[in-house]
Amino acid sequence: MAPAADGVNVKPVSERAVHALPAAPKNVFVHKQDKASSMVHAWTNYYELPVEYTVEIHKDILSPKNTALATRFMPAGLKRRFCVIDETVHTLYAPKLRDYFAAHNVELKIVLIKGEEENKLFAAVEKIFNAMSEFGLLRREPVVAIGGGCVLDIVGFTASCYRRGVPYIRVPTTLLAIVDASVGVKCGVDWVHPTMGGLKNRMGSFYPPCAAFLDKGFIATQDERNLINGMGEIMKLALVRSKELFSLLEVHGKRLVQQRFQTDDFVPDRVIELSIQIMLEELGPNLWEHRLERCVDYGHTFSKILEMTASPPVMHGEAVNIDGFICIILSHRKGWISTETRNRVFAAMRNIGLPTWNSACTIKLLSQAVTDGIEHRHGKLRMPLVRGNIGQSGFINECTEDQLQDAISQILEMHHGARVKDGNV
Amino acid sequence: MAPAADGVNVKPVSERAVHALPAAPKNVFVHKQDKASSMVHAWTNYYELPVEYTVEIHKDILSPKNTALATRFMPAGLKRRFCVIDETVHTLYAPKLRDYFAAHNVELKIVLIKGEEENKLFAAVEKIFNAMSEFGLLRREPVVAIGGGCVLDIVGFTASCYRRGVPYIRVPTTLLAIVDASVGVKCGVDWVHPTMGGLKNRMGSFYPPCAAFLDKGFIATQDERNLINGMGEIMKLALVRSKELFSLLEVHGKRLVQQRFQTDDFVPDRVIELSIQIMLEELGPNLWEHRLERCVDYGHTFSKILEMTASPPVMHGEAVNIDGFICIILSHRKGWISTETRNRVFAAMRNIGLPTWNSACTIKLLSQAVTDGIEHRHGKLRMPLVRGNIGQSGFINECTEDQLQDAISQILEMHHGARVKDGNV
Repeated sequence: MAPAADGVNVKPVSERAVHALPAAPKNVFVHKQDKASSMVHAWTNYYELPVEYTVEIHKDILSPKNTALATRFMPAGLKRRFCVIDETVHTLYAPKLRDYFAAHNVELKIVLIKGEEENKLFAAVEKIFNAMSEFGLLRREPVVAIGGGCVLDIVGFTASCYRRGVPYIRVPTTLLAIVDASVGVKCGVDWVHPTMGGLKNRMGSFYPPCAAFLDKGFIATQDERNLINGMGEIMKLALVRSKELFSLLEVHGKRLVQQRFQTDDFVPDRVIELSIQIMLEELGPNLWEHRLERCVDYGHTFSKILEMTASPPVMHGEAVNIDGFICIILSHRKGWISTETRNRVFAAMRNIGLPTWNSACTIKLLSQAVTDGIEHRHGKLRMPLVRGNIGQSGFINECTEDQLQDAISQILEMHHGARVKDGNV
Repeated sequence: MAPAADGVNVKPVSERAVHALPAAPKNVFVHKQDKASSMVHAWTNYYELPVEYTVEIHKDILSPKNTALATRFMPAGLKRRFCVIDETVHTLYAPKLRDYFAAHNVELKIVLIKGEEENKLFAAVEKIFNAMSEFGLLRREPVVAIGGGCVLDIVGFTASCYRRGVPYIRVPTTLLAIVDASVGVKCGVDWVHPTMGGLKNRMGSFYPPCAAFLDKGFIATQDERNLINGMGEIMKLALVRSKELFSLLEVHGKRLVQQRFQTDDFVPDRVIELSIQIMLEELGPNLWEHRLERCVDYGHTFSKILEMTASPPVMHGEAVNIDGFICIILSHRKGWISTETRNRVFAAMRNIGLPTWNSACTIKLLSQAVTDGIEHRHGKLRMPLVRGNIGQSGFINECTEDQLQDAISQILEMHHGARVKDGNV
């Protein structure tokens, strides 16, 4: 499915020198012999795989009145659910979950996994895979994943390779997962190479869920750091796509964190809806990333390696924001944004409590990240930067060591000015 | 991508109560609020993933005149190939391979893996995955798999999950892989569960290659048993889809095995082309197996468990033929085919040297296979049988222990009549 370098034949099939096979006239075509080459006979198989999933915002997903989790996508005759749940979420919600499924007379099978980034490894896939085998999961029976982004990533990948793919439902329980992992189709785990060490998201797949059920009620039990973590991805979306979203964060960001998005005014819902809408607009037409220039990759160049190496560990959204702020500086030094915009972004980030620097960001690490980025984005850096105003972006393919060194100096200077007290400078 | 039980919404998007998002008007839609349920807001993401690959018959794929293997799908500026090769194939063709790539000035990176069924395990994926990481494989740089079906299955699955999917090219080197593994999009490895034991093809994916390059020249170095193994899959295709193919096997099968498909008359090429054409006609419109009634599943119900448990081991095509013959008996006892047809198939199979029985086929094993088949095909057996004439098929959903016991007795009786000398009765 990954398009190869010289790509898919762009001519419509009707214009090619081929004829169709009688029993599959719509998608299997026979080529005429090519006497110039050694190819004596060939067929083309052309297929459009229909993919469809919904992203749904629910109120009280665990209320017995809500039937979604108990009944949706359930094969006829079955009254059971295979759920993979984050250990922490399970500690907090076990009685509610048990009551919910009991109320619907659905037998609940629970597999617990750890949710933090350092557990996003093949060992977790193995555990779920064995449990699926023991359970006798049917080929069209959906698995339910309840947890943060790591849990959704692990379960999605496991579902994608069990019997070559079984359906799954995403139930995010963190702010970050609600606006990020739930919306797209990317799954995966980190891979530990015997000498190269951890390789982030190296093993995975593009695998759409049948649905994502979003309930911001879960966020109420998150701690502040996890809330801020989610704000990192929302800030990213604002910077490259939406002035409105940025303004909401600038004005309300701090209290949204404090109030855990649980107030009745329009702001929390609008922030979540705007984030999801932007993600869907960006991912929707490019689900398999045939186009590698993606503005949603903002903050995802330096953050990958930072997440794998920083000690004490930084969380995904934190790393994305640190990366995103490095990019603001690069953007400013290129003359793509004004000093006023740079300062406004810096102030908004710090007001929310988003980290803007980490001492692990050495010149060596940032340079390695550029090299890795070029490999991952197939030979070009394709790094998005804010360009012009907040909400607009452009791409750069070059980022020299001098530019990175200059950015580091600038950032240290700004943080000195901001009188940062924590150890993260 | 696996459709969930209540399936994809079949209404065209235009007829649904939704409106499109301005920035992704073709595939992202917003639902109106559903006041009856707890769902307050929802989006549908609809996408058609274009898939295209070619199956090409080549003459002398390793001749320096043929540019396919050296240049096709090569990213601009690169002059290197990452090839995963079967150890045995490498022993036989190493000098030719080295000369070929040297002639095209392409740097060759070789990863060797073992090709037999018992090595089709996650450990092989791990080995290739680590080598890909060390090599720094780009996201659009195709991996080349050269070997039999097991090697193609392993490499395909590894390619599908490296960086969420890199392209790959299939170069089958066995008769079985030429007519079977090369044509479709299924990949995978067996999974070893700590207490349940080996689970065939349990971990895998549907992942199309960018191309399959077929060269029957490789078959010349296969031994007789491997040739017959390939004939098992060809026989399967003949039984459910083609009288012409069956007649060719009936008349020429034995000599095709002896002559390794290398003679200049029309028969070897016609047998291979017909097999591929039938496979493409059957797989093409149903690549992801959204429809679980598949006549190409003929011989794939009892064979899976037989392959995992028989001692001494049986090969895939042998197991398919043993299964296929059990099905001929079931078909005959149901009155779906005449005694004459049954005997004709039996004679053709034995003339080619295809095994028609294995003592591991106890009533316990066959019953377990029926249970497993129902789980794999989502709650129904959906087992294809020849119905009417050779080349036509129907499906059954029930297969009782009595019917299986009766089939075993029948088969033993027929083999006694055939004076089978080997230990396989």
